[in-house]
This record gives sequence, structure tokens and C-alpha cells, in this order.
Amino acid sequence: MASKVRLYVDQPLGKGQTVSLTKEQAHYLFGVMRLGAGAVLSLFDGQNGEWDAEVAEAGKKGGSLLCTEQTRPLQMPPDLWLLFAPIKKERTDFIVEKAVELGAGRIVPVQTEFTNSGRVKQDRLQAHAIEAAEQCGGTFVPEVAEMERLGRLLDTWPEGRRLMFCDETMLGAATALAGEARGPWAILIGPEGGFSEAERARLKALPYALPFSLGPRILRADTAAVAALTLWQSALGDWA
Amino acid sequence: MASKVRLYVDQPLGKGQTVSLTKEQAHYLFGVMRLGAGAVLSLFDGQNGEWDAEVAEAGKKGGSLLCTEQTRPLQMPPDLWLLFAPIKKERTDFIVEKAVELGAGRIVPVQTEFTNSGRVKQDRLQAHAIEAAEQCGGTFVPEVAEMERLGRLLDTWPEGRRLMFCDETMLGAATALAGEARGPWAILIGPEGGFSEAERARLKALPYALPFSLGPRILRADTAAVAALTLWQSALGDWA
Repeated sequence: MASKVRLYVDQPLGKGQTVSLTKEQAHYLFGVMRLGAGAVLSLFDGQNGEWDAEVAEAGKKGGSLLCTEQTRPLQMPPDLWLLFAPIKKERTDFIVEKAVELGAGRIVPVQTEFTNSGRVKQDRLQAHAIEAAEQCGGTFVPEVAEMERLGRLLDTWPEGRRLMFCDETMLGAATALAGEARGPWAILIGPEGGFSEAERARLKALPYALPFSLGPRILRADTAAVAALTLWQSALGDWA
Repeated sequence: MASKVRLYVDQPLGKGQTVSLTKEQAHYLFGVMRLGAGAVLSLFDGQNGEWDAEVAEAGKKGGSLLCTEQTRPLQMPPDLWLLFAPIKKERTDFIVEKAVELGAGRIVPVQTEFTNSGRVKQDRLQAHAIEAAEQCGGTFVPEVAEMERLGRLLDTWPEGRRLMFCDETMLGAATALAGEARGPWAILIGPEGGFSEAERARLKALPYALPFSLGPRILRADTAAVAALTLWQSALGDWA
């Protein structure tokens, strides 16, 4: 059942292309995964699909790969953003991992009035997104944006993008998405304390926004993120 | 935004009932949450709904509560079992937590041919389920069963219970559940290595089983569990 090692590389892939490895990548491939010269692995760069590559040179501090054949074309996820109010570190990591697996196109940590976590490390979350894409067989890596304030995000909201929002105070039957139009969407998951009154009023008044319920029990923010992504994908996304 | 402390107790609740606390419960209520005599909290016993209770006596090693008013009736989740092949400890804990939040009625760790984790501690997982119920506002705590072999489970399968099963090798559009009959169901999430050929053949041949896909990307087992519970609840459960 051993499957090929998959590695994301930050350079354009193509037939005959040589890929130079960083120290960390060399350590992973040759130290951890024990690949030697001639071994075949899978590469993707987020833009040119998935490629077979052979280990040309394996060193302790570096090495190189030779890109041979494209094995899969680029598969873009739907144009879906996941906006979420960061929570505890472990659960924030989890949300990013799940968003990649479930096919979000862009991930945006959002600062709301009741968001506890003052800051998130964008680069750490981006690395997490890359790892999740390596793991789940994706050929695309969603961008993790820098944290933005909810108010600013709404001030500059792109025309034509719908927004479904949910927080823990919204209990009831799950909202049906089946009748909604496809196209660019965003999901906004509120913080564990819920949105403030002012935030909720503003969200409810937006013509492009859809308040969304996720059943009769209170869900943690990470559960809500996975559930909302699932319902969206199965009704309007690439699971449909 | 401070909400009432919620505590599960393992004794039947009713008006005027006195509840004796264990040392752990007393430590939690009086040490960690800093409740004193007269403070009001929420109790549930998994059978008689949710009750307000007052602290009658607060001690370092014990104490007692007086049950005053029922605040909510028992709300049973739908008759849905979650069967899953245990994975790494942290992700197994996560599956149990999410199953409770998402309203599974019973949780069964399953030993398949490719299940890595040899054993799970049933009591630890049950404690985890209780904590999740306290957190999510549930009035019911699903039983976490002892680990069972998949073959034995299927040998003794209850009549009339449908089974949807998914593993990481089943990619494609999400299976539509909307046309399926309500009633007792189970969801079976395969191990990260997938089911064996023999297991998959047996599952596919069962008249009550429904092979199930969760989209075009490979999902980790914990993601698959949350996604499958979400789709089931929104089509056939108490989110519908």
C-alpha cells in the first residue's frame, strides 16, 4: 500500500526540468523517506499539475530531481474562500488542513470583535496548507492570506461573490444550498463567542450574504468549518 | 458572554434531587471554575434532560448540588452509529468529539485488516464523549463501544439498519442521500490504508450497504468522518 512520496516545490515544473532541493527538502526525501538516486517521486508546483521526478543527486544538505512525465493536470478547486476567526493554535491548524482537503481556493483568517487570538503566523499556516496538499493528493495549494479585520474585508468585498456566514448562536435546520447559484462564494465561520450584535446586523443586511445554520447542536468553530465546506461542496462545488 | 457551567453526572436527575460530587467534579467546579455555595450551573445525566442546580456544599474533596428546575428536555440524536477504524490518538479523539457534536447516537471503533492502531482505550474515549457533550450543549451522551472486528460486526448486523461506507479510495461526486429512507443507519469510515479487497467485496455485496463518495480529493479519516456525518444529518437526520 506504499504510495509515492509527494512534494510541493516552489518552481515551475515541466518535462526535463531540473529541480534543486533546499536543505529541508533534502533532509525529508533522503533522511526521513530514505529515497536514493534513481528513486521516483511525485512533484507539484500548484500551477502545472503533478509530475513524476527522479532523484538525480541525493546529498545531506541538498540534491536535485529530474522532472520526467506529467501524471496529472492541474485541478483547481472551486472559487470558494474560507474566512474564519482563529481559535486555539491546534484547532486553527486543523481548520487550515481541512480547508485544503475539502477544496477551498483561498483561506483568510479574520479578526472579529470577539476573536481571542490576537495574531496568527501566516507563514506557519501557509506551510500547513502545503503539507495538507501534499497529503491529500491536491495539485493546487490555496493561499493563506494575512489576517484581516472583518470590517475591512466587508468594506472591500469583491462584486459578485456570495457569502454564507454561520456562528454558534445560529441553531436550527441546516440551510438548503441546493437552490443557490454557483459562482464565487465565501464561507465565514464566526468565533467561539459568536459575532457581536453589530457584526451580525451588518452581515444580515448585506445583499450578497446568506445566514447559515448547521443543525440543532452548538458546533465548535473547527467542526462548523468542516461541515459548512462539506455542505457547500456537495451542493455547489466539485462534489456535486 | 459567560455561559453557565455544564456538567454531566452519572445519576438520575429530578426536582429536589441532591447530587454528590466526586473529587474530580469538586475540583473542576470549585477549583477550576471557582463556583461557590449558591452558584447555579447546568447538569445533565443523558436521560432526563438538562437541569439547573445550585451548589449546596463546596469542599476541596467533594460537595453537593441541589437540582432545582428542568431547563430542557432530553433531546436524543437520530439513530445513527458512527463506525470508524481508529487512527493516531489525537485524530481518534477528534473523531469522537466531532461525532458527539454532530449528533451520532453510538460510536464504535472498528478493527479492519489495515487498521494500524491495535487497541483503543474505551474509557478514555467515553470520557472524551462526555466532555464533548458538556461543551456542545447536548443532553445525551453517545455510548463509545469497545473495539470490534469488522467481520464480527457484519456477522451480527441488526436487521433494518442501513450502512453507508466510504474509504479513501472512493473518489468522485458525493453520493446523493436525499432519496434514501430515514430510519436506523450507520456510517463506516475505513482506515487510512483503505479497506482490503476482501472487505470491500463483502461490503459491496451487502443488501443494506451504500458505497459512498466524498468528493474528488483524498480525505483523511477524521475529515471523512465529519463530512459523512454532515451529509447524513442534513439529508436524513435532525438537520433536515
